[in-house]
Amino acid sequence: MLTFEENELLTRTGPGTPMGKLMRRYWIPALFSEQLPQPDCPPLRVRLLGEDLVAFRDTNGQPGMLGQHCPHRGASLFFGRNEECGLRCVYHGWKFDVTGQCVDMPNEPPESNFKTKIRTTAYPCVERGGVIWTYMGPPELQPGPPEYEFAMVPESHRFGTRHTQDCNWLQSVEGGLDTAHVPFLHIGDRAYDRGKEIDVKRDMKTIAFHYEAVDTDFGLMIGQRRHLDNERAQWSTTPYLLPWYKIIIPLTRDGLTGYHAWVPIDDEHCMTWSWEYHPQRPLIEGDLEFSNSFRHIHLENIPGTDRPVWNAGNDYGLDRELQRSGKHFTGIKGVGLQDTAMQESQGPIYDRRFERLGTSDVPLIAMRRCLLDALKHMERGEAPRGLDPASHHARPGNVILPIGAPFAEGLARLSGSAADWAPVGIG
Amino acid sequence: MLTFEENELLTRTGPGTPMGKLMRRYWIPALFSEQLPQPDCPPLRVRLLGEDLVAFRDTNGQPGMLGQHCPHRGASLFFGRNEECGLRCVYHGWKFDVTGQCVDMPNEPPESNFKTKIRTTAYPCVERGGVIWTYMGPPELQPGPPEYEFAMVPESHRFGTRHTQDCNWLQSVEGGLDTAHVPFLHIGDRAYDRGKEIDVKRDMKTIAFHYEAVDTDFGLMIGQRRHLDNERAQWSTTPYLLPWYKIIIPLTRDGLTGYHAWVPIDDEHCMTWSWEYHPQRPLIEGDLEFSNSFRHIHLENIPGTDRPVWNAGNDYGLDRELQRSGKHFTGIKGVGLQDTAMQESQGPIYDRRFERLGTSDVPLIAMRRCLLDALKHMERGEAPRGLDPASHHARPGNVILPIGAPFAEGLARLSGSAADWAPVGIG
Amino acid sequence: MLTFEENELLTRTGPGTPMGKLMRRYWIPALFSEQLPQPDCPPLRVRLLGEDLVAFRDTNGQPGMLGQHCPHRGASLFFGRNEECGLRCVYHGWKFDVTGQCVDMPNEPPESNFKTKIRTTAYPCVERGGVIWTYMGPPELQPGPPEYEFAMVPESHRFGTRHTQDCNWLQSVEGGLDTAHVPFLHIGDRAYDRGKEIDVKRDMKTIAFHYEAVDTDFGLMIGQRRHLDNERAQWSTTPYLLPWYKIIIPLTRDGLTGYHAWVPIDDEHCMTWSWEYHPQRPLIEGDLEFSNSFRHIHLENIPGTDRPVWNAGNDYGLDRELQRSGKHFTGIKGVGLQDTAMQESQGPIYDRRFERLGTSDVPLIAMRRCLLDALKHMERGEAPRGLDPASHHARPGNVILPIGAPFAEGLARLSGSAADWAPVGIG
Repeated sequence: MLTFEENELLTRTGPGTPMGKLMRRYWIPALFSEQLPQPDCPPLRVRLLGEDLVAFRDTNGQPGMLGQHCPHRGASLFFGRNEECGLRCVYHGWKFDVTGQCVDMPNEPPESNFKTKIRTTAYPCVERGGVIWTYMGPPELQPGPPEYEFAMVPESHRFGTRHTQDCNWLQSVEGGLDTAHVPFLHIGDRAYDRGKEIDVKRDMKTIAFHYEAVDTDFGLMIGQRRHLDNERAQWSTTPYLLPWYKIIIPLTRDGLTGYHAWVPIDDEHCMTWSWEYHPQRPLIEGDLEFSNSFRHIHLENIPGTDRPVWNAGNDYGLDRELQRSGKHFTGIKGVGLQDTAMQESQGPIYDRRFERLGTSDVPLIAMRRCLLDALKHMERGEAPRGLDPASHHARPGNVILPIGAPFAEGLARLSGSAADWAPVGIG
Repeated sequence: MLTFEENELLTRTGPGTPMGKLMRRYWIPALFSEQLPQPDCPPLRVRLLGEDLVAFRDTNGQPGMLGQHCPHRGASLFFGRNEECGLRCVYHGWKFDVTGQCVDMPNEPPESNFKTKIRTTAYPCVERGGVIWTYMGPPELQPGPPEYEFAMVPESHRFGTRHTQDCNWLQSVEGGLDTAHVPFLHIGDRAYDRGKEIDVKRDMKTIAFHYEAVDTDFGLMIGQRRHLDNERAQWSTTPYLLPWYKIIIPLTRDGLTGYHAWVPIDDEHCMTWSWEYHPQRPLIEGDLEFSNSFRHIHLENIPGTDRPVWNAGNDYGLDRELQRSGKHFTGIKGVGLQDTAMQESQGPIYDRRFERLGTSDVPLIAMRRCLLDALKHMERGEAPRGLDPASHHARPGNVILPIGAPFAEGLARLSGSAADWAPVGIG
Repeated sequence: MLTFEENELLTRTGPGTPMGKLMRRYWIPALFSEQLPQPDCPPLRVRLLGEDLVAFRDTNGQPGMLGQHCPHRGASLFFGRNEECGLRCVYHGWKFDVTGQCVDMPNEPPESNFKTKIRTTAYPCVERGGVIWTYMGPPELQPGPPEYEFAMVPESHRFGTRHTQDCNWLQSVEGGLDTAHVPFLHIGDRAYDRGKEIDVKRDMKTIAFHYEAVDTDFGLMIGQRRHLDNERAQWSTTPYLLPWYKIIIPLTRDGLTGYHAWVPIDDEHCMTWSWEYHPQRPLIEGDLEFSNSFRHIHLENIPGTDRPVWNAGNDYGLDRELQRSGKHFTGIKGVGLQDTAMQESQGPIYDRRFERLGTSDVPLIAMRRCLLDALKHMERGEAPRGLDPASHHARPGNVILPIGAPFAEGLARLSGSAADWAPVGIG
């Protein structure tokens, strides 16, 4: 349960809000690189944290991120001409480079130096891992470029999609860290996709995990415990990286890993980024079989948009017959779609005064506290955790401990190597 | 004319509002029974008096009405699994019975008793007359189940439909009690439906009824007087039952009766319920000829919805040629559609500061006063009228009195039997 | 740059606002006469300055403009019967003539004189120049009917269209007076329409006009200077007539003239009226070649509506390939559409606190001052300029002056005759 004030504090991200200030300290995934495929290609509208922007790639291939409205008289630079290292407003020909400097002002007399005085909002961009990242914070505090693992592997090792969600970003992050829902919400999905039969009612029983969360330099490492026998417990770990990342522990011994980011578009919409990657080898046929059927974390979008084909307007394709059949839990097909349905159904901005949290909600309680701590650090002038790129190398893992040993002890034993992924004791 | 404050008082029905509190004292028609056709069928979204709910029918056939959002973390129970006497949230498997008690919480440890502490919003339901009724008021004040006549006759005697209106509930009730519009708004409709010719301009003349209203134990009996000759006047009566019911006097000697309820969905939308029934015999071929053509009080809905096919977006199918022809008054086809068009055209919530009422508006003035009185009764801790099911047996009727005799005198002579329906002196 | 308060003052036009009061002193173009083609034809909904109205033409051919809601109980008179010199509400038959007087009230007793006490909102209308104009101000201050030149020429001399814009009226007027954008925004449009090749990048250079504005009895005459040689300068003039008119100087020696009005529908929408006319002769084949292709100031509307086919929802048909080709500046086809795209892209109500005006923005600065002056005149009880029909005869023109001579000197030399239109020194 949160107070009204805490809920506002965590969910509001526009310019000037505390959470908005915190988020602006981090590099923000804005676009896939391929959305600006070549120098001088058409600019795109981007909305981030409630700000309307326009992204373009200049003649040198450098991405730029400008305020959407020309500082002259507010016409949209989306309609601009992308030409010779700058975006030219088509209203009066003012032209801006990627730094926001006005570099041409053809409606003023040649002797005028007015253009040198005009800068428009411009956020620095870097490209890494097939993503254009932008930094919307104070220039003097700009951190080094991001080093999240999915972004550091070669392109051949990675597959990514994104889709919009019609809800506040925090609901999506909570849904991501809340692995307690997995044995309910997602029951039967993989089986359905493979045409196999299950029996939800027969199989469903009390599945209550024990969670512990440990503070790290990137945010949190969340441990989920499962007893293997009377002496040993297995801890599966989920890293939460401030402010909006989650790494999904590989479901197979081989190590195919999932990565999410949930980035506010504005306070009632967020962009869900979903990557799968292998840290050590290119993806091969079969890796993405489940993903390509849109049954995994990826969603099928309406062509040319980031909006899912299946959405609240059509009840996410809810199939009541399938739900009733006993072979599937929800009747909504696909892990990512199931997550989206739940998170959006909480409403545009969920009012956490009315929630009733249980023991399986430890991960989200820890995450909210982690965010509130980060706000305090920022207020005191300290750097929030997770800013230093060296902290981005977090990895999930599995570790076996004696029953009764605290998760923190196991965390120290995680090597960060692929050996940790082995789903010991499962299956 | 109402003051701004009075208008707010009568039109606002959300939780905590005075009118909302009053309405929550009565059983509320929520769904047709057939909308939840069998045990464990798919749940439905319901919105009543501004509250988002989900209705389901449990394994025993008992209807339940729960708050739409799971108390755990707010996911919508609409997506829930309806199974074994409870609705199970698909997010984490919490399950609730029709009383709102959490009866299963599989994501908590088996030894946990957390589920016993969790109750969600649940409103009792009864089924009667093909309708699922719910009670949203204080449990200790719950009245006996409704005994409105349309709901007490066998199913074979009754025909009902419903449709949404995009306006405040009070406009619809006013439109229902305002029989003064009948000889204008509805001219030519029945003739048009039967391919007969009329001449609006020739036929239209001053048609001004005299109205009197008398307080009853259910609300009001409204009398509409018409002189039969120099000595006798006929009074036709329209019962208004608190808070939103109206009975339509039979238009034929035989006694086919109409019944309306206008229930707030929220303050800018209401559900119009329309029944026709015969108190004494099953409906027979021909009874519903006019109704089945959607020319009577019933409207054709967009399949699978409660939204009329003809609505404000298409000007209710307004046919200007027909209007100009002189054979029809409005060019909008059907009594119910004509009513809807007028009521919605007053705006989402009509501002009664700007109305100019005349002598034919006595019924609505009386109805508003009746509602304001009921609010006062409730404030003083008295039961509002119309709560006691014994008061629900109201019937319309016709009575002949000497000219000059007050309506109250005739009311005492109404027997409540079918004999009263005889449209004496008409035709 | 404007303060927040100034911006509100200039952009808000609803009942009771200062700018709304000013605008209501002028005749307002409401409909094309042909939209009410004959006596007793169907009434139309009209929204002007935030007021919902209904327009009709009575049996005598006189246009009427009434408040949309019947004063009785608020039903929309749009659904009314237009019959025998009045519009009859179909709810209870109340009938109103063009003066707003209730002339029939058939639901009241014959002896009642209630109808004589009922007047509804009614604004006087005149017809001139193929337009129905209405006056929404104080009756005692009603000026003589409009004498704008486009409205005084015979119908054969004139061609007019209108379309809605989804932005505040002031953005549109500013866009109209801002001729500095012409050599940018509109580059290549005429050439494209004729299949000719240009090279935007080669041709574009600094094109900075010098502007001066002079107060007149109708508003402003705006002069745009271009040096012809070392001794002479040509001044092209654009009349701005309070509160929302602009005359476009003929682009050809022959004198085909353009005229605009931008009338608030409400504060986030305006109606753009566009006329072309010849003061001295009927239009001939070829005059409207460019207009008929929708490349000039006119826009193609969705049939039966005033909404452009190409609008923000489809990015105004933006053709990025054409934009990149170098043969066209914007990739948006048509002068009027380019203007609309820019003006709407400033947002519903542009916040002028954030603008950065340059020397080419003199015309809009002058126009805003002219409006603020008019507000002051009105406050002091003086008649604002441009009310007197004698002031409506403004004409654009060209004049040649020695370099260094002020525009005011040339203005005195403009004869107002066709000779002034000769585009001296161009081409």
